[in-house]
Amino acid sequence: MDLWFTEKQTEDYGITAKITKTLHTEQTEFQDLAVIETNEWGRMLVLDGCVMTTIRDEFVYHEMIAHVALSAHPNPQKVLVVGGGDGGVMREIIKHATVQKAVLAEIDGRVIEVAKQFLPEIAVALTDPRVDVQVIDGIAHVKEHKEEYDVIIVDSTDPIGPAVGLFAKEFYQSIYEALKPDGIFVAQSESPFMHSELIQRVQNDVSDLFPITKLYVASIPTYPSGLWSFTIGSKRYDPAQIADEKRADGLSTRYYTKALHQAAFVLPAFVKELVKA
Amino acid sequence: MDLWFTEKQTEDYGITAKITKTLHTEQTEFQDLAVIETNEWGRMLVLDGCVMTTIRDEFVYHEMIAHVALSAHPNPQKVLVVGGGDGGVMREIIKHATVQKAVLAEIDGRVIEVAKQFLPEIAVALTDPRVDVQVIDGIAHVKEHKEEYDVIIVDSTDPIGPAVGLFAKEFYQSIYEALKPDGIFVAQSESPFMHSELIQRVQNDVSDLFPITKLYVASIPTYPSGLWSFTIGSKRYDPAQIADEKRADGLSTRYYTKALHQAAFVLPAFVKELVKA
Repeated sequence: MDLWFTEKQTEDYGITAKITKTLHTEQTEFQDLAVIETNEWGRMLVLDGCVMTTIRDEFVYHEMIAHVALSAHPNPQKVLVVGGGDGGVMREIIKHATVQKAVLAEIDGRVIEVAKQFLPEIAVALTDPRVDVQVIDGIAHVKEHKEEYDVIIVDSTDPIGPAVGLFAKEFYQSIYEALKPDGIFVAQSESPFMHSELIQRVQNDVSDLFPITKLYVASIPTYPSGLWSFTIGSKRYDPAQIADEKRADGLSTRYYTKALHQAAFVLPAFVKELVKA
Repeated sequence: MDLWFTEKQTEDYGITAKITKTLHTEQTEFQDLAVIETNEWGRMLVLDGCVMTTIRDEFVYHEMIAHVALSAHPNPQKVLVVGGGDGGVMREIIKHATVQKAVLAEIDGRVIEVAKQFLPEIAVALTDPRVDVQVIDGIAHVKEHKEEYDVIIVDSTDPIGPAVGLFAKEFYQSIYEALKPDGIFVAQSESPFMHSELIQRVQNDVSDLFPITKLYVASIPTYPSGLWSFTIGSKRYDPAQIADEKRADGLSTRYYTKALHQAAFVLPAFVKELVKA
């Protein structure tokens, strides 16, 4: 019997992958959580029917959400990740030797536990001594901390259900205040092909708060359209420039490179049009 | 009744789109040809079950296969397209005022006729006086012409069925000979995520013949993985550099920009690794 998992990425379009095994399914307090095994992408973490990450292509998302902001900062010591319970972003963050403490604020503790069990390659950093895993509401955490973080990374699900508040301007305001005077913030901001209005709104909201706001992109096959965007807000440093060449050189990566750091900000014409001031 | 078209891009993975109408289906002398209408991507040209182009995302492929080679050449006057019966590449080629003649060598005349009927936005240039549409075998045409073309573009289907010969080293040899002493050749060369061995073989074969061989990429949502590669072989000019800034400035495009021309050659680490000498 052939079993296929289909994610309807829109009402009218989706991706479909042959399943070799369903490793786990549960309804958590916050969402429907599953881990399935596919031939094409290996194990997949699926939340509310949407692919969050897969063993085969997770490196793109995790490297590109972490290393751009961290490499643009000359000395990132304290980092916050909101969401990101699978641990992939943390694995990349602790590749930066400057980082002394990285806090994970994940609202759904089950994501952390299931990732540790079924996606150990991704969750590997969650037991690192520099990583402080907290099962808390990231929105509240950000509100309660002022001028504390060098870099804040918002690794959210899509802007439906539990993640709606992670795309709100009030949240970006709290992030601004939780950052040190030279801090940098980055959030995944969906697909330029599929979610242009969201990208525009996020860009407007972030640029109302941060003196420097930019968009960059990366190719993630299992995300809608395969082209994904990241919105970055910076208080002082140009996020398209690498602050510490030697540190960036030392990163062991499969997608991110120093040259690609800058090239990722060179947008296709229709995307450039979306975010022009 | 909901009808969905599913393309199995590999044995274990595919894309699926809701169909609003089947506009045309036929078995030509060479392949199975269909035009279907979808909500998500508009009309789609489908050959042997594979999406060739869609109204909504065709601009990426057609701009990026045409404008990189043409902008890298200081004075492209005579251009050949092998394949490309839908006319999209021609539409982009004739945006360059230097072009005096562009020959289309398409083996399957039915693709041309069906594109004219159902995809007129894409086929629009096929009646341009500078365009010479020939229903012929491109491999034979290239063999019969020596030092004649400034730019040769291979807009092929996947390397199965009628297009196998378009990925053969003998064909690249004929292309080299059909180009003038400063000619440039470009071919679509599939996905770095899905077809790494093909990309490596094409890169090796082309670099055995051309003094300068490079790979560049673009994001095409309806192609496997969403990340697509193009292999470019050049006799004299660096294909990553724009030869005539003013001409490139004048192009009306939705994906290609002068900055993106160069950025498209900045490859993700795993892709760079694939094509390193």
